Amino acid sequence: MGDVMTLSSLTQATDLLAAVSFAVTGSLVASRKNMDIIGFMWLAVVTGVGGGTVRDIILDVPVFWVLDPIHAIACLVTAVFVFFLVPFIESRRKTVLWFDAIGLALVTVVGTAKGMDHNVGPFVAVVMGVITATVGGVVRDVIGNEPSVVVRREIYVTAALLGGSTYVLLLSLNVSGIMAAIGSFLVTFSVRSLAMIFQWQLPSFPGSIR
Amino acid sequence: MGDVMTLSSLTQATDLLAAVSFAVTGSLVASRKNMDIIGFMWLAVVTGVGGGTVRDIILDVPVFWVLDPIHAIACLVTAVFVFFLVPFIESRRKTVLWFDAIGLALVTVVGTAKGMDHNVGPFVAVVMGVITATVGGVVRDVIGNEPSVVVRREIYVTAALLGGSTYVLLLSLNVSGIMAAIGSFLVTFSVRSLAMIFQWQLPSFPGSIR
Amino acid sequence: MGDVMTLSSLTQATDLLAAVSFAVTGSLVASRKNMDIIGFMWLAVVTGVGGGTVRDIILDVPVFWVLDPIHAIACLVTAVFVFFLVPFIESRRKTVLWFDAIGLALVTVVGTAKGMDHNVGPFVAVVMGVITATVGGVVRDVIGNEPSVVVRREIYVTAALLGGSTYVLLLSLNVSGIMAAIGSFLVTFSVRSLAMIFQWQLPSFPGSIR
Repeated sequence: MGDVMTLSSLTQATDLLAAVSFAVTGSLVASRKNMDIIGFMWLAVVTGVGGGTVRDIILDVPVFWVLDPIHAIACLVTAVFVFFLVPFIESRRKTVLWFDAIGLALVTVVGTAKGMDHNVGPFVAVVMGVITATVGGVVRDVIGNEPSVVVRREIYVTAALLGGSTYVLLLSLNVSGIMAAIGSFLVTFSVRSLAMIFQWQLPSFPGSIR
Repeated sequence: MGDVMTLSSLTQATDLLAAVSFAVTGSLVASRKNMDIIGFMWLAVVTGVGGGTVRDIILDVPVFWVLDPIHAIACLVTAVFVFFLVPFIESRRKTVLWFDAIGLALVTVVGTAKGMDHNVGPFVAVVMGVITATVGGVVRDVIGNEPSVVVRREIYVTAALLGGSTYVLLLSLNVSGIMAAIGSFLVTFSVRSLAMIFQWQLPSFPGSIR
Repeated sequence: MGDVMTLSSLTQATDLLAAVSFAVTGSLVASRKNMDIIGFMWLAVVTGVGGGTVRDIILDVPVFWVLDPIHAIACLVTAVFVFFLVPFIESRRKTVLWFDAIGLALVTVVGTAKGMDHNVGPFVAVVMGVITATVGGVVRDVIGNEPSVVVRREIYVTAALLGGSTYVLLLSLNVSGIMAAIGSFLVTFSVRSLAMIFQWQLPSFPGSIR
């Protein structure tokens, strides 16, 4: 029981860290568009909790921040911090990319695990992980009028896809949930990190070659 | 009981007026993009009922216009009117801005009140008010390829935020629902009106200054 | 009973064909944006199942591809095929437009019928048909940064509107479901086909003339 509570607290903490990481990226897009503090807050919340909201609606379970608004509040606080600290953060753009990578890895695990918990099968569970990982960023980029994470070729969705697949694969091999989560996190984070360091890209469509 | 029916009719009427106000703004964006009448109708409906639709889906309650399509029908009729009357309305652009301000104030009250009725707590209730007030306009602007209400710095989301907060604050002070609604409407409408008249803006992020 | 199973298989088949048709159009937008294969898959799935997803969420019924992911898998397979066959398909652009027209006619029927099955009334049922027919394409075009099907004046939404209306009209005249579906399909497909062949357009708003 102590273990379960620890695990639950851990999930809570990782969830929060993920929302905050994404909220930072939303706030930075707001800063590039010279928005006011309310615009920062709006975009931080949408980026931070948007993916999980769509996931919960598709799974037809209560939306997580309606049950407990702590994530949404954390996004608002993040927006205020970033608003006043942008010069400091902007000069540390790379640090932010790393935060985003951590957020990506965390929500991929959480999203895929939530899908598996609701017995939707491994395929749909991985789709839930990818949705949680990408939808917030896509809405952020559409509203900020920037090329979205889906359009750019930088091993972002791919990392979530591989990480989510790792989770369901490990579960099917009777690995425990917590170990599968750690494995999934490491795969997503490693793939995304290596892609950032070595500027990996998947090839674009071969149509123009032929 | 007579009172409840009157109140219910009043809510119905304000809801309709709000949907129509937003449908007018959707139709005007359609006119600037030279859409045909079906495009007018599509954008009028999305703008008019979009925010409330997302609110109901997140609250996991039946979508209001599926229960009773009167609001959606009103948006369609509005689109047809605007289609043929655009020159008349365009020259009265300011009148439309005032309609939009009334719509904003109305849906903020309705959205926040619906949240409180479903016991989601004051914070989430205010978020529901803001969602109802802004999502339709954001979708309208994304599809019409215009800078969205969230990106512009013109005390729009802020007005909804203050109005929704007024509602939950008054309720917590044991003010009756109808009085809280009136107070909330007046705060939202006043803030938005004053912002339009005096062209108030919140400061953009201070990053470029430091 | 044999008839019901045949009808059910038929619906399954038409559903799949519709999803694949739309997935082809999503993949082609991905090819124009030089996306990688994961981008193709993301956009193919969103275009292929997006409209039906929003329909199911608004109707508050389980999302169809969560119950049975065959449609989503078919979209992924389509994306892979298109990725490697783009030169072949691009040169047959017209063939694709015809596939899209078939997809449009199929999802209009399916969407409207699903609405009628859930007793939302004829008006909302037609709206469901139009939502199923258009939302996937709108999201595709917003993410691909192209003028959306709603903005363009090419009798697309109109075809869905007429086809969906045909379905509810025939049902109200006591025509059987299968015959109403065929009639609805033929109206949608004919209107869309004739519009493509003769480049029909509805007039844009008359504002500039007066």
